[in-house]
Amino acid sequence: MASKHEISTLFVTIFLLLILGSSGSPRKSMRSRRPCKEMVFYFHDIIYNGKNSKNATSAIVGAPAWGNHTILAKYNHFGNLVVFDDPITLDNNLHSPPVGRAQGFYIYDQKDIFTAWLGFSFVFNSTAHKGSINFAGADPLMNKTRDISVIGGTGDFFMTRGIATIMTDSFEGEVYFRLRVDIKFYECW
Amino acid sequence: MASKHEISTLFVTIFLLLILGSSGSPRKSMRSRRPCKEMVFYFHDIIYNGKNSKNATSAIVGAPAWGNHTILAKYNHFGNLVVFDDPITLDNNLHSPPVGRAQGFYIYDQKDIFTAWLGFSFVFNSTAHKGSINFAGADPLMNKTRDISVIGGTGDFFMTRGIATIMTDSFEGEVYFRLRVDIKFYECW
Amino acid sequence: MASKHEISTLFVTIFLLLILGSSGSPRKSMRSRRPCKEMVFYFHDIIYNGKNSKNATSAIVGAPAWGNHTILAKYNHFGNLVVFDDPITLDNNLHSPPVGRAQGFYIYDQKDIFTAWLGFSFVFNSTAHKGSINFAGADPLMNKTRDISVIGGTGDFFMTRGIATIMTDSFEGEVYFRLRVDIKFYECW
Repeated sequence: MASKHEISTLFVTIFLLLILGSSGSPRKSMRSRRPCKEMVFYFHDIIYNGKNSKNATSAIVGAPAWGNHTILAKYNHFGNLVVFDDPITLDNNLHSPPVGRAQGFYIYDQKDIFTAWLGFSFVFNSTAHKGSINFAGADPLMNKTRDISVIGGTGDFFMTRGIATIMTDSFEGEVYFRLRVDIKFYECW
Repeated sequence: MASKHEISTLFVTIFLLLILGSSGSPRKSMRSRRPCKEMVFYFHDIIYNGKNSKNATSAIVGAPAWGNHTILAKYNHFGNLVVFDDPITLDNNLHSPPVGRAQGFYIYDQKDIFTAWLGFSFVFNSTAHKGSINFAGADPLMNKTRDISVIGGTGDFFMTRGIATIMTDSFEGEVYFRLRVDIKFYECW
Repeated sequence: MASKHEISTLFVTIFLLLILGSSGSPRKSMRSRRPCKEMVFYFHDIIYNGKNSKNATSAIVGAPAWGNHTILAKYNHFGNLVVFDDPITLDNNLHSPPVGRAQGFYIYDQKDIFTAWLGFSFVFNSTAHKGSINFAGADPLMNKTRDISVIGGTGDFFMTRGIATIMTDSFEGEVYFRLRVDIKFYECW
């Protein structure tokens, strides 16, 4: 019985050392790469081209010296800043009832290939979801999938962080594109 | 005494299982929704309109095809990008001594209602505070209160995260507005 | 032996109380200010001036009413939005093999001194690094060092957060500048 007792004490001591050790060192080992929440959405962007003001959901508002605010610039649209207010849907149908709005901007930022930088939010105000998810990151849009950061959230998404994987689900010239967004939250509250 | 001993061992074992269980699962339960720090500030925006260059603290620098850089565009200013360097005060008086600067941009991003997307910092360099707080998020500015994310901080605000609740404290046509910002930090270091 | 046993039980109880106490209070004490990873990079910005379209890595795409998209505006470039796609190098030589691209934007946002707001990513796609690091924050560029936030990361930099200290390593008129970036990650996964 004495040895059983000593084993128990040893057990506690080792455990204590492990805990104390891990709290002092970088917290790498405490973090889980298993998402605490997952969601999939689509959003739809119709860019203003001078003729579609009724349907357009986005517009060019910045351009390089060689561009203008109606037609996307040459050199892979380098320098075009686009503001958007796009409907979010649960499936890939533009005409499905929107469940929220994707609002923010993208800037085409490479001369030799299509690439953009994104800063935007998903804004929800329905019985299903209330609150917002904030995103930022590079979108090398010729890649099949691209990862950007979920940098914060409010309401139902209070303080969340995670990764959003973006896929171009449809692309129709320079008028319409649809993105599929797979959101994996790794910090939930 | 033997049973007491067994209870002790059982206790340790259950505890171990609890700890191991919680570190493997999403870390939801470890997080506190009690702020670790709270602050309230006001900031003041005077937009350049072609006549007020001395007092203006912000300026239109992006506009849609139907707009210009002196007058905010129709359709609820959709597409206007505004850069600002606004004084931060502790109360709602524009003429109070500024305690810092709110610097960054907002983009009006909805055609049918006033809404903006914000990316900015509070920059402090006084005896009271040194460092910066970085913000991003959607600002549906017709709502009484709006939540955006504190995405990071430096100096006195090293690595902070949280929620900033914005209220329009005053709004004078398209010349001046004042925002009250209630910052709640939930991650302090 | 009985007392030894009681000490063991006491030990466990105190430990339990400590753990339970720390999980309820703000998690300040659990956080380490020791970086879990450190990296140093340089990046190089050559701004388009109407004559250098071959070498330019950035361009003015937003300007105030008193500016244009070829020459940086007066009043310390207040209101100029610049989009960039800059090579990242391991040393301070512009002609060293780039290890990645710095992509995003900066906005000059103060009339009486050079100051900018940055939103950008480091994008890596080599054997050494795959993934991206996302940054945001105020850059009071006349200061010797400036801290901005690492707001997220993907790939090799999955979910990272930290502080990036920026130094202007070289500045040649309004044509070329080189920044040294010391990245300290405090959250690794």
